[in-house]
Amino acid sequence: MHFDLHPQLAADTVAVGDLPLCRLLLMNDSRYPWTILVPRRAGLRELYELHESDLQRYWRESMLLSRTLMSAFGGDKLNIGALGNLVPQLHVHHIVRFQADAAWPAPVWGKHPPLAYAPAALDERVTLLRGLLAQELAAPALA
Amino acid sequence: MHFDLHPQLAADTVAVGDLPLCRLLLMNDSRYPWTILVPRRAGLRELYELHESDLQRYWRESMLLSRTLMSAFGGDKLNIGALGNLVPQLHVHHIVRFQADAAWPAPVWGKHPPLAYAPAALDERVTLLRGLLAQELAAPALA
Repeated sequence: MHFDLHPQLAADTVAVGDLPLCRLLLMNDSRYPWTILVPRRAGLRELYELHESDLQRYWRESMLLSRTLMSAFGGDKLNIGALGNLVPQLHVHHIVRFQADAAWPAPVWGKHPPLAYAPAALDERVTLLRGLLAQELAAPALA
Repeated sequence: MHFDLHPQLAADTVAVGDLPLCRLLLMNDSRYPWTILVPRRAGLRELYELHESDLQRYWRESMLLSRTLMSAFGGDKLNIGALGNLVPQLHVHHIVRFQADAAWPAPVWGKHPPLAYAPAALDERVTLLRGLLAQELAAPALA
């Protein structure tokens, strides 16, 4: 079964690139540095459905992304969430939070409608993430 | 540095017992089967701060708990969240969600005030969890 990104995720995000297991997405919401990891495996809904070797890859990529984001943005807290109540395709949010951000201390989901980046700011952020993760990223995923 | 459960977590939950790394807590909110894993390491706020061997233990315990909960309760979706914006001690929510539950499809945090279990129902649920995880649990943590 072929992996296709869920249309809702495709609509809400920009693809940063592909890590060995996961597609890395940037949520188009300038309120927070908000990224999403999507394992490129078809038909999965839960983390525990990953095969053991993929699970190891996933955790490695999640921890690498976590450290990279917190180091680059200097957040007060990282929020990691695997929810999927609305979009069934397995995807895991990694969101840098600040005490001064629009939703603090609440979780971001459902708190405010997304505030899209200006085009130049979106390009800049994607470029920054690609640079930070260049050693791990394959060629950016094309839509 | 000695591990002590954060007082807010202690107030909101009942201790089910100790897995090799994590204390397993049951949130005293009868609206959802809602558990929390707390690595018994002092001073941690983020998953990526766990040492490599602890990280392996954590993922193993998280996946075991995830499968156990979904198998026992037959939920529609598992929600996993490491937030910690309010309670800084590293803790990770594992919540079984149902399409008919009080918050669906929203995340549970901040949606409704906790609805405490009746004492007998709380005992029953803790006993169920201890039974399901008996092979992995040490003697239940004492307050």
